[in-house]
Amino acid sequence: MIKIGIVGGSGYTGGELIRLLLGHPEAEIAIVTSRRLSGTPVTDIHRHLSGLFDLTFENPSPEEIASACDLVITAVPHGAAMEIVPKLLEGGTRVVDLSADYRLPVEVFEATYARAHTDSGRLGAGDQGAVFGLPELHPEVAGARIVANPGCYPTGAILSAAPLANAKMVKYAIFDSKSGVSGAGVDPSDTSHYPNLAENIRAYNITTHRHLPEIVQELGWLDGSLTGIHFTPHVIPAIRGILTTAHLLLHEECDSGSSSNSDYDAILELYREFYRDTPFVRVQDYIPNLADVRGSNFCDIGLACSGNRVVAVSAIDNLVKGASGQAIQNMNLMFGLPETCGLLTPPLSP
Amino acid sequence: MIKIGIVGGSGYTGGELIRLLLGHPEAEIAIVTSRRLSGTPVTDIHRHLSGLFDLTFENPSPEEIASACDLVITAVPHGAAMEIVPKLLEGGTRVVDLSADYRLPVEVFEATYARAHTDSGRLGAGDQGAVFGLPELHPEVAGARIVANPGCYPTGAILSAAPLANAKMVKYAIFDSKSGVSGAGVDPSDTSHYPNLAENIRAYNITTHRHLPEIVQELGWLDGSLTGIHFTPHVIPAIRGILTTAHLLLHEECDSGSSSNSDYDAILELYREFYRDTPFVRVQDYIPNLADVRGSNFCDIGLACSGNRVVAVSAIDNLVKGASGQAIQNMNLMFGLPETCGLLTPPLSP
Amino acid sequence: MIKIGIVGGSGYTGGELIRLLLGHPEAEIAIVTSRRLSGTPVTDIHRHLSGLFDLTFENPSPEEIASACDLVITAVPHGAAMEIVPKLLEGGTRVVDLSADYRLPVEVFEATYARAHTDSGRLGAGDQGAVFGLPELHPEVAGARIVANPGCYPTGAILSAAPLANAKMVKYAIFDSKSGVSGAGVDPSDTSHYPNLAENIRAYNITTHRHLPEIVQELGWLDGSLTGIHFTPHVIPAIRGILTTAHLLLHEECDSGSSSNSDYDAILELYREFYRDTPFVRVQDYIPNLADVRGSNFCDIGLACSGNRVVAVSAIDNLVKGASGQAIQNMNLMFGLPETCGLLTPPLSP
Amino acid sequence: MIKIGIVGGSGYTGGELIRLLLGHPEAEIAIVTSRRLSGTPVTDIHRHLSGLFDLTFENPSPEEIASACDLVITAVPHGAAMEIVPKLLEGGTRVVDLSADYRLPVEVFEATYARAHTDSGRLGAGDQGAVFGLPELHPEVAGARIVANPGCYPTGAILSAAPLANAKMVKYAIFDSKSGVSGAGVDPSDTSHYPNLAENIRAYNITTHRHLPEIVQELGWLDGSLTGIHFTPHVIPAIRGILTTAHLLLHEECDSGSSSNSDYDAILELYREFYRDTPFVRVQDYIPNLADVRGSNFCDIGLACSGNRVVAVSAIDNLVKGASGQAIQNMNLMFGLPETCGLLTPPLSP
Repeated sequence: MIKIGIVGGSGYTGGELIRLLLGHPEAEIAIVTSRRLSGTPVTDIHRHLSGLFDLTFENPSPEEIASACDLVITAVPHGAAMEIVPKLLEGGTRVVDLSADYRLPVEVFEATYARAHTDSGRLGAGDQGAVFGLPELHPEVAGARIVANPGCYPTGAILSAAPLANAKMVKYAIFDSKSGVSGAGVDPSDTSHYPNLAENIRAYNITTHRHLPEIVQELGWLDGSLTGIHFTPHVIPAIRGILTTAHLLLHEECDSGSSSNSDYDAILELYREFYRDTPFVRVQDYIPNLADVRGSNFCDIGLACSGNRVVAVSAIDNLVKGASGQAIQNMNLMFGLPETCGLLTPPLSP
Repeated sequence: MIKIGIVGGSGYTGGELIRLLLGHPEAEIAIVTSRRLSGTPVTDIHRHLSGLFDLTFENPSPEEIASACDLVITAVPHGAAMEIVPKLLEGGTRVVDLSADYRLPVEVFEATYARAHTDSGRLGAGDQGAVFGLPELHPEVAGARIVANPGCYPTGAILSAAPLANAKMVKYAIFDSKSGVSGAGVDPSDTSHYPNLAENIRAYNITTHRHLPEIVQELGWLDGSLTGIHFTPHVIPAIRGILTTAHLLLHEECDSGSSSNSDYDAILELYREFYRDTPFVRVQDYIPNLADVRGSNFCDIGLACSGNRVVAVSAIDNLVKGASGQAIQNMNLMFGLPETCGLLTPPLSP
Repeated sequence: MIKIGIVGGSGYTGGELIRLLLGHPEAEIAIVTSRRLSGTPVTDIHRHLSGLFDLTFENPSPEEIASACDLVITAVPHGAAMEIVPKLLEGGTRVVDLSADYRLPVEVFEATYARAHTDSGRLGAGDQGAVFGLPELHPEVAGARIVANPGCYPTGAILSAAPLANAKMVKYAIFDSKSGVSGAGVDPSDTSHYPNLAENIRAYNITTHRHLPEIVQELGWLDGSLTGIHFTPHVIPAIRGILTTAHLLLHEECDSGSSSNSDYDAILELYREFYRDTPFVRVQDYIPNLADVRGSNFCDIGLACSGNRVVAVSAIDNLVKGASGQAIQNMNLMFGLPETCGLLTPPLSP
Repeated sequence: MIKIGIVGGSGYTGGELIRLLLGHPEAEIAIVTSRRLSGTPVTDIHRHLSGLFDLTFENPSPEEIASACDLVITAVPHGAAMEIVPKLLEGGTRVVDLSADYRLPVEVFEATYARAHTDSGRLGAGDQGAVFGLPELHPEVAGARIVANPGCYPTGAILSAAPLANAKMVKYAIFDSKSGVSGAGVDPSDTSHYPNLAENIRAYNITTHRHLPEIVQELGWLDGSLTGIHFTPHVIPAIRGILTTAHLLLHEECDSGSSSNSDYDAILELYREFYRDTPFVRVQDYIPNLADVRGSNFCDIGLACSGNRVVAVSAIDNLVKGASGQAIQNMNLMFGLPETCGLLTPPLSP
């Protein structure tokens, strides 16, 4: 059994890591940490897991965590991860980090997050450094000691456009994303205040969201000439899920999205071929929605096509494929397990 | 492996049976029937299960179903079940029926559902007849050939009051239940029309709901003198879940619900003792809610106490403990498996 | 024109007072106060009123407010009202107070709110003191200098049961209320956190809610022998509205709620007669819901009847009939205007 | 008083016309028709208006309607309007039509709606024909006998982009719209089925929605060279409202959206200037949302700006500014009333 440590386990991603790992046949949770809640039974906070999980939040040193765990998943805010990850790695364990700290080159990180990086040696360090943990594009996570789990928005956005970017067909990519509010975390805020969100939708950080550089980095890696990338997020009245509507203006035209159309068929085939060996991306011949993937690690993608525009719609659960599930997918690869091991929990629908 | 047939698999309970059985180590689905959709791949309808399940809806005869299955779960409307169940049983298979057809004595059924019963020989027939499939009260489901899975409301209502009824302490029991709308099924209706339900709540069948006789039957079985039983259901803006607020007026008084109070403690202990050996009832020292049990087979119960009133609040997922999960719980008992086998899927929260 | 001051205008009830008074032909808003936001344009906070309202939040002394206003509506927390109301009254203005400070006799207030009352001389002082501002029961608000606007839950609960209480027919009254979350105010909290509330319902303060004494007081005033009064509130996923399901166990029996039934008819007629001259109570021959009254000052009531139980269901908008609208209704009466003046805004449905 | 007829008054737009006209000082409703419901009191269907409105649905001939009314508002499906409108006009009344029948040139209509137009003489007929009833762009509605009220999506989309289109600055306009479900009408459907919509969002008619030609027509009228117009609608879990995120790629670049930025300021000023005399468009220096306009005739617009992209976000209530309110706005202009007469109902927020 792989021994897992969860650092920062009191939030939604922590709860999801536990939920998912409870069904994993090859991993067991050794430690769940929380500075604030040390000594409190985990199920006092994650009440839904009552009777299913016995551990108590602890607050051990990084060295203690490292020595007790084969893998540590860090679910702490950006800035906090770079403090603890080096100690964990020096302690001999491997790490999947859910924060933004290891996703970007140092100069991009520092410009985006307006803070100095204190562990920049691991950024962009090739085999020795952090790997961007989107397994569909980066099989090299298997050999990594530190994997930077992508942001929730970038996961859905990158996967929606990667096949066309890879084919060098995209001139402008405009990602219009709609997210459930759990991505904002467990702490109440104006955004998550029910009277502000119910029966509503909010566009925010319209041209400035911090996840944009991840999207630019990954699509740019597929097509170095693709620079017209835009991203606008919205919060919708939903707990979970991100639907990304990717408006992809092509260099050349394709025809209408009717099902008999050859160009639609060609692009659908392009997507299916690109994702042939990725078990969690389901390319569909219809437009998916959030219920199709709720609670699961799937990313469903559907397509429409008209003139010079392809619209790719991706649906993920932001807490699973957009965070905790993808972390376990990375773990599976890092430990030589089947990518889907313990992760084929069916979506909850309706 | 137990071979399972699902008769009427295109609705929500059918989808849930498949979702739950996909994770069951001792059962496999042999047949999923739908008259209307025969020949259609199941995942064309239950899209969330895409890639996880390969069967196609079929429309075989009851005899064919019986010969292919060790257990058949019938998820058809009341009235339809009594047509097919006898043929299934004669074919040698066992049955868990999700309809109302086998839950009540014939005279109560006929008065409640305003139709004649065509298989009344199996009602109230003791060892040879149908058993009311609430395993927490009826361990005799283990030996039954035909189990009548309870209604969703009765499951939550009965469990919320059973310990006090069993102790003969209740004078009036007023069940005020609040249900998600998935109980009304997959077909759009005025009730499920989003503009009618969102930001709203509807009381309906306020004194006349067909589930009342099941509650009366089971609580009356625990306390023959308890006749003051009332039940009012509401639909709330939620997909899943039933919260039942049981206002239980006692023959004698108990004191206030403050945690230091001895009577509260005594009643909490009464509940814990009553449910000591029932793995799916979690008696809590707080008031549970729908998120605590979403997607799972748990029934969480919390209590408050003041003067001569105990308020017991139960939370279930109407599609799981209120339907498909309870059917599998019954199956486990019928086939000598651990009651929890394949059913400890953690709730999905948030 | 009646000059109105709003003390504490930055919350939901403040916004609603402005919204409603903008359409009032005989009143104009002279002052809106907020200590924290003094100097900020009101529409910076109440953005929906942008372009419709020009005032800026101020922080004048009570004396200044009193001298500028014919009526002051105080929308401040309990405890804060009793500090300012005496000064306002001494300044010669009249007051409608939305807090709990003037609703209860001093000993009940102090036991319920666990604090000393510093203006107790105005409680229970008859003609000279505060009047409980439920105009349907208390026409004497017309002559009052200080009106205590009722709580939101008591408004719906009392109106649902008053005709039967007045007829001395009720033995036990169990009010099971379901409220939108705007009653908890503009500040984010765990209760209003979208992931905690959406797809959920929460029972809280199950036997101990502070609004219970108001219900007991008013129904006891109608029927001194009625002591079996219980109240359990819930928060539902809705912004506005309270549906109260009043389970009323009668001393004697009435028959089933079918529409041809004489007892149902008799009780419906009892309600219609009781509310004959109250323009905001609409007694219906169906069960109302929140959409029927959304945004309006109406209280809709419907009935069902079975055995010894009458179930009365009332629907109000908690921010209007449960707070700001009722305050204006009281204002109309205090200033000799028609009770409905400026208050017949149609509900917003769907 | 202007005498108004509402043809097809049983749906949401009919209910909204009545709600809004009840507060209009210069208009009164003379007739509300419904073939199916003739003889039924209007408030049996629009229960929220109980006590406020006395008429009964009728089914008179077009000639009778025309002779009784100064203006008829037709709220019937496309195809049905072109049958009745000519008879109404011949009867001497004026018409605002909420259907799509008179919005487009005949060839565009017939291609879009796949049916022949039987009253094509009124399309594109200049002064004698139908006028596109978006008053912010078409003051000539004042003199029209037949006004074609725009679609809900086009209203929000066109207004979000018109100032930049008018300035000939836009190269590509990608409208990503998110609508409440009331636009789909009162009849239950899979789309409006609560379990399908709650906690979800659906993209549909991604490149093929019938409202696209209206957007193309109006923006093309402002800038004949603007051809790169795309439109993708979504349904969100909301009853009312459309938020349109207009991704406008410019011929030339503008700079970042920070508030100190001169280009942002220039574009904000461009919008404010363009809408200087339009009382229902509120150009804001923040990003509006649906609650800001709920229940009102306002269209709020906010802006962000980065590189060569301007993102304009517009919020409307689809049933008011997107339908019934705009019809009354057109009516006001047609009858020489102030444009805002009876239409300044404040939005309902929260």
